[in-house]
Amino acid sequence: MTVSAGNEPGSWNTLSSEYLYRRPWLTMRQDRVRLPNNRIIDEYYVWEFPPWCNVVALTKTGEFVLIKQYRHGIGMVHYEIPAGVHDQPEESLLEAARRELLEETGFGGGRWSPLMKLSANPALQDNISHTFLAEGVEKIGKQSLDATEEISVHLATREELRTILRKGGMIQALHVAPLLKYLMDTEQ
Amino acid sequence: MTVSAGNEPGSWNTLSSEYLYRRPWLTMRQDRVRLPNNRIIDEYYVWEFPPWCNVVALTKTGEFVLIKQYRHGIGMVHYEIPAGVHDQPEESLLEAARRELLEETGFGGGRWSPLMKLSANPALQDNISHTFLAEGVEKIGKQSLDATEEISVHLATREELRTILRKGGMIQALHVAPLLKYLMDTEQ
Repeated sequence: MTVSAGNEPGSWNTLSSEYLYRRPWLTMRQDRVRLPNNRIIDEYYVWEFPPWCNVVALTKTGEFVLIKQYRHGIGMVHYEIPAGVHDQPEESLLEAARRELLEETGFGGGRWSPLMKLSANPALQDNISHTFLAEGVEKIGKQSLDATEEISVHLATREELRTILRKGGMIQALHVAPLLKYLMDTEQ
Repeated sequence: MTVSAGNEPGSWNTLSSEYLYRRPWLTMRQDRVRLPNNRIIDEYYVWEFPPWCNVVALTKTGEFVLIKQYRHGIGMVHYEIPAGVHDQPEESLLEAARRELLEETGFGGGRWSPLMKLSANPALQDNISHTFLAEGVEKIGKQSLDATEEISVHLATREELRTILRKGGMIQALHVAPLLKYLMDTEQ
C-alpha cells in the first residue's frame, strides 16, 4: 500500500526550547529543531494546552445534546457538542467530561465510554482531545456557566443532527468527526 | 428543539486589538472584548492564519491517496490527507488544493468538487479549512517537497481506510471528519 520511495518519516530532534509566553490562557514555546535530513528550523512555534475533552451525549429517547456558543476566533455561532479542558489534577478525563456536560447543559447520568481521540492541530499544538460517548443522559440540574460563557442547549433527533451536519451548521472539526463516527458506527 | 432559556448567544464586541507577533509563521493578536453581558475580557488571544485546504483524493480504481508526515506539536507520525495553505493571491482555493496534492504525492487530474468546510478551532484561530473531493486522480508526476517536508504516500482501499480510522491511525480532526463524511455519503 506504500507507494513512495524510502521509509516512514522520521522524528525531529529538539535542540533547544524557549517559552515566549506562560500566561494562564497562553503557553507558547519556540523550538529549534533538527530534521532527519539534518536541516535546522530555528523558529518552530508550539502552543501547549491541557488535554481537552468533549461528549457525544444522547438522551434516553435518543436525542443528541447539542449547544450553541459564540466563538471569537471566527466571530460566529455554530452548533457544538459540550466540551472543556482537563485542567484539574484531581479529576480524571471522564470526570472532567461529566462535569462539563453538567455545567454547560444540566444533563448527566447515563452510560459513559471512550469514543475517539483527535488533535485539533498535531503540527502546532501538543494536546489531544478525548471524546466520550454518554448514552441515556437526562436533565438532572441547571446550567452553571462561567461569567464569560453564554451557551444555549438544543436537543436534536438523529435526522436533525444529520441535517445540521449536511448544511454546515457545525464547523468545529473536533466535534464533527466524533458525531460522524457515531452515526457511522450505529447505522442501521 | 431548543431547551435552554433565552436567545441564541450574541457576538462579542472587539474594543481594541494589538498584534503581539507578525512573523511569517506566527501572527498572534490580543483583543480586548466586551461580551453581551457587558463583561470585559482584557486578554483574548487569536491566531491568524490564511485559509487551509485539503483533499480527499480517490484513484480511478477507488483507492484513497493518503500520506504520512511527522508532526512536531504532538511529536508523532500519523496518516493524513494531502493538505496545505492558501497563501498565494493569484491562486484559487481549488488551485491551491490541486497544487498541494501534486507536490505532496505526484497525483493529479480527476474530477474536483467542494466537500466540506471546517475550523480547527473556532475559538482561538480565524481561518477555515476547505476540503475538496477529487475523484479519479492518477499519478502524473513526482513528489516535489520543500526541504523541511518528508512525506510518504500510501494508497488505501475503502476497507483499509476504515481500519485506519477505527484503530486511531489518523488523528488530525480536519482530515478525519471529511473522510468520515465521504464514507457516510457513499455508503452502499
